[in-house]
Amino acid sequence: MELGKFIVLEGLEGAGKTTAHQTVVNTLKKYGIEDVCFTREPGGTPLAEKLRTLIKHGDPNEPVTDMAELLMLYAARVQLVENVIKPALQAGRWVIGDRHDLSSQAYQGGGRQIDQQLLTTLKQTVLGDFEPDLTLYLDLDPQIGLTRAKNRGELDRIEQQQLTFFQRTRQRYLELVSNNPKCVTIQAEKPLEQVSNQIEDALTKWLKKVGKVAK
Amino acid sequence: MELGKFIVLEGLEGAGKTTAHQTVVNTLKKYGIEDVCFTREPGGTPLAEKLRTLIKHGDPNEPVTDMAELLMLYAARVQLVENVIKPALQAGRWVIGDRHDLSSQAYQGGGRQIDQQLLTTLKQTVLGDFEPDLTLYLDLDPQIGLTRAKNRGELDRIEQQQLTFFQRTRQRYLELVSNNPKCVTIQAEKPLEQVSNQIEDALTKWLKKVGKVAK
Repeated sequence: MELGKFIVLEGLEGAGKTTAHQTVVNTLKKYGIEDVCFTREPGGTPLAEKLRTLIKHGDPNEPVTDMAELLMLYAARVQLVENVIKPALQAGRWVIGDRHDLSSQAYQGGGRQIDQQLLTTLKQTVLGDFEPDLTLYLDLDPQIGLTRAKNRGELDRIEQQQLTFFQRTRQRYLELVSNNPKCVTIQAEKPLEQVSNQIEDALTKWLKKVGKVAK
Repeated sequence: MELGKFIVLEGLEGAGKTTAHQTVVNTLKKYGIEDVCFTREPGGTPLAEKLRTLIKHGDPNEPVTDMAELLMLYAARVQLVENVIKPALQAGRWVIGDRHDLSSQAYQGGGRQIDQQLLTTLKQTVLGDFEPDLTLYLDLDPQIGLTRAKNRGELDRIEQQQLTFFQRTRQRYLELVSNNPKCVTIQAEKPLEQVSNQIEDALTKWLKKVGKVAK
């Protein structure tokens, strides 16, 4: 059986990942790819969702250290990869991920300023060679994204960071994406329809490249 | 102000760490050291205790991967070290730990057979140079320890491992302790009074060595 593919949506708060997800699903459907499942990070398994709560809300009586946050993110990620993503791909299903490892590289490396070498070591140690087949990075000015996120309601521990935190995170996203042929940047500040068109175009181009759609 | 010292008790299930703890407290008291606090691992902070529950009981619907277990152990440890142990030592208090990093080296390295180089990298990444001033390792045949642990009641996810798991764990404990001048092995199969005497002797000898008790 042919393996499924792992497509990831990345970007800051309010970048429009939920809408983008629907565009990806619709585009895949158009080309006859319908056996698709959805994951989110941190989370996506019973244990990883418990870790998500600890990561997002911490404990009222104790500061969460940057290192503990990072280790919990990777604990949740390895559960998701081993227990959900890999089995799905092996069964020929496609997986669409709301965030994956690039988020840790950008938020913990850029935002929290954890040493990049340490992050690379941890990634290789925990995940080995496993990585998404395609990442769509929704790029926008953090100020715009945060305003959108605030309009959605209560902000969690990470969404409450200062603007400079998100500026550093965006900067790191841009650096990482520019060096990775498996990543495509989407201009997420544009009107909704234009964003959807960009996603559909990028995805179609990639599907042709990997031979899933006739050129 | 003079820094406090960090003394750790290590050993398999049923090795007698709780009784040993009392012997350590009594011995320190005899020499006028009374400002002592107690930690246990995994756990010892609000967040780390939540992680302890996840580590010990997992989730009924999902297997815990060895890697996630390891990362959660280190997440809990870094919270304890940064938020409890280091502040206590800096305030001149002594800390007695029920388990610390050596447990991960022995259980995850020996028992779970996770690559030793990976464990060393993770330890250095997360803890840097931080380590106990003295570790008392309570050595005994795992069969004896497990019988004692079973008599105490319900076994958790880790205590339910096969005997060979604990044999490998003990083997790794012995290797690690024999190479570390800050560790002392206690023969924990002996009658209770003899175990207490060994602990008191080892601790007194060490207190003299570090100048806390007149020679």
